[in-house]
Amino acid sequence: MFKKICIIGCGLIGSSLARAIKKNNLSKKIVSSNRSNIVNKKVIKLKIVDNSSSDTKKIVKGCDLVIIATPLSSYKNVILKIKNSLAKGTILTDVGSVKNKIFSLVEKEIPKSVSWIPSHPIAGTEESGPEAGFAELFKNKWCILTPSKKAKNSDTKLLKSFWERVGSKVDVMGIKKHDHIMSITSHIPHLIAYNIVSTSLKIQDQKKSSIVKYSAGGFRDFTRIAASNPIMWRDIFIHNKKNINKVINKFIKNLEDIKKTIENENSKKLEKIFSKTKKIRKEIIQSGQDINKPDFGR
Amino acid sequence: MFKKICIIGCGLIGSSLARAIKKNNLSKKIVSSNRSNIVNKKVIKLKIVDNSSSDTKKIVKGCDLVIIATPLSSYKNVILKIKNSLAKGTILTDVGSVKNKIFSLVEKEIPKSVSWIPSHPIAGTEESGPEAGFAELFKNKWCILTPSKKAKNSDTKLLKSFWERVGSKVDVMGIKKHDHIMSITSHIPHLIAYNIVSTSLKIQDQKKSSIVKYSAGGFRDFTRIAASNPIMWRDIFIHNKKNINKVINKFIKNLEDIKKTIENENSKKLEKIFSKTKKIRKEIIQSGQDINKPDFGR
Repeated sequence: MFKKICIIGCGLIGSSLARAIKKNNLSKKIVSSNRSNIVNKKVIKLKIVDNSSSDTKKIVKGCDLVIIATPLSSYKNVILKIKNSLAKGTILTDVGSVKNKIFSLVEKEIPKSVSWIPSHPIAGTEESGPEAGFAELFKNKWCILTPSKKAKNSDTKLLKSFWERVGSKVDVMGIKKHDHIMSITSHIPHLIAYNIVSTSLKIQDQKKSSIVKYSAGGFRDFTRIAASNPIMWRDIFIHNKKNINKVINKFIKNLEDIKKTIENENSKKLEKIFSKTKKIRKEIIQSGQDINKPDFGR
Repeated sequence: MFKKICIIGCGLIGSSLARAIKKNNLSKKIVSSNRSNIVNKKVIKLKIVDNSSSDTKKIVKGCDLVIIATPLSSYKNVILKIKNSLAKGTILTDVGSVKNKIFSLVEKEIPKSVSWIPSHPIAGTEESGPEAGFAELFKNKWCILTPSKKAKNSDTKLLKSFWERVGSKVDVMGIKKHDHIMSITSHIPHLIAYNIVSTSLKIQDQKKSSIVKYSAGGFRDFTRIAASNPIMWRDIFIHNKKNINKVINKFIKNLEDIKKTIENENSKKLEKIFSKTKKIRKEIIQSGQDINKPDFGR
């Protein structure tokens, strides 16, 4: 499918993608670039890639697909390093969770002959680093493409089938819609998980052992989500701050309303709210996004 | 272990307990009482209990262990029905998630010869009803006992080994401590899950299909929690409202602080907050409350 793919940043997503590319024979050669030489040596030793170097400028040369898989705050640095090394006709993509800012940043910097087609595979675990990756991460998961207007249609088609070959279902949409939907379905849930764990930690240090001991009552699930990569999420929240802060305001308003309803012991209203939220679960199961099997902890 | 056990309310918890009692031979006979005769017929047909009737007053007669497993708002009704039918030396317990209010309500009503020892098995799934129950629900889960001062010590010991025989680890504590810890580890996580789903539902109806479609990004896990029994949770929030509303206030204050930190793009502070929350995850895994295996959706 490709001659040479370069993945910049072999973390959970980057290394999973490299494994999936190898497993599905999607490129003759696959290389990567990491700032740390310990990581460069590790990904070669683990046979995740054929070659790896911290010299990003040099290693992207001759690649027909370049994938940025670093935290969002590193994009500017990466682009300035590689922009003059990208061959004509190269497809440039990424795996970032927010498209605002980085979309136009990259579009402005790269040559016209390069097709800039951002990707967002909606996949991940709470683990980080190259050892945590696995080839099946993208299987049956959505991947959203937000192609630049300057990108060739044939390249978008090619990238779409690339993601399909690693197991994803692909949708194409604009960056505004993408960032808004993701703020609700992904960013706010993560932020709230961080906030609930952070609030509990603050409440009382003496209670900490009890919180850990009895965490199976619900808290535990939030700690799993709140154990995700801090750098990655810090960048996501900052890059999507307009959407996120709007939803936070609505979230707080709604919570104040529920608080008042509890305070007034308004049973009927509470029951109505909680019955409504039960309905959307059914829709998620019907749509195949989850299975109808109870989860009672492990 | 017992001659005759009566379970009042065969929902998820009650029916799981009945199954566990049968499986582990903890009573010669086991009966139940449900308001609905459809349920009474069902639990007999499913062989979950030996007999079942809506006449609670009658069916508790001759039982040496009576377990209330109804929503908290039904306790008063139940107690008024059964208080004169309880035999001398009976152990009376429940499975409720909040001990405030119901503790003294029951203590005041029942005869001195009855040992009132509330239980709280920290176990459950998002499903409800007698069909959803299973005998292994309590295995390796904590069960907290908050015995009344009037209860016999030997009865507390007996009830402790009863819970151990169905697979639980047992702790004994006071009701104040119980309700405070549970507000943090269980009640607030559930309330926040309800709130996040409820807020998202309100945002825009046209976005609903997208929210369902891309829910795997984090939102899905909250819908699972927010699909739990509305009546049960309504009662829990109302009964533990003092603790819950205090934690909500702290939660909102912390969230406002994070919002401001995002607004100001204070990367260092955000990273620090999210790194701290990662630590408690390690403690939970070390304590055996969860396993160190990533969860990437199913």
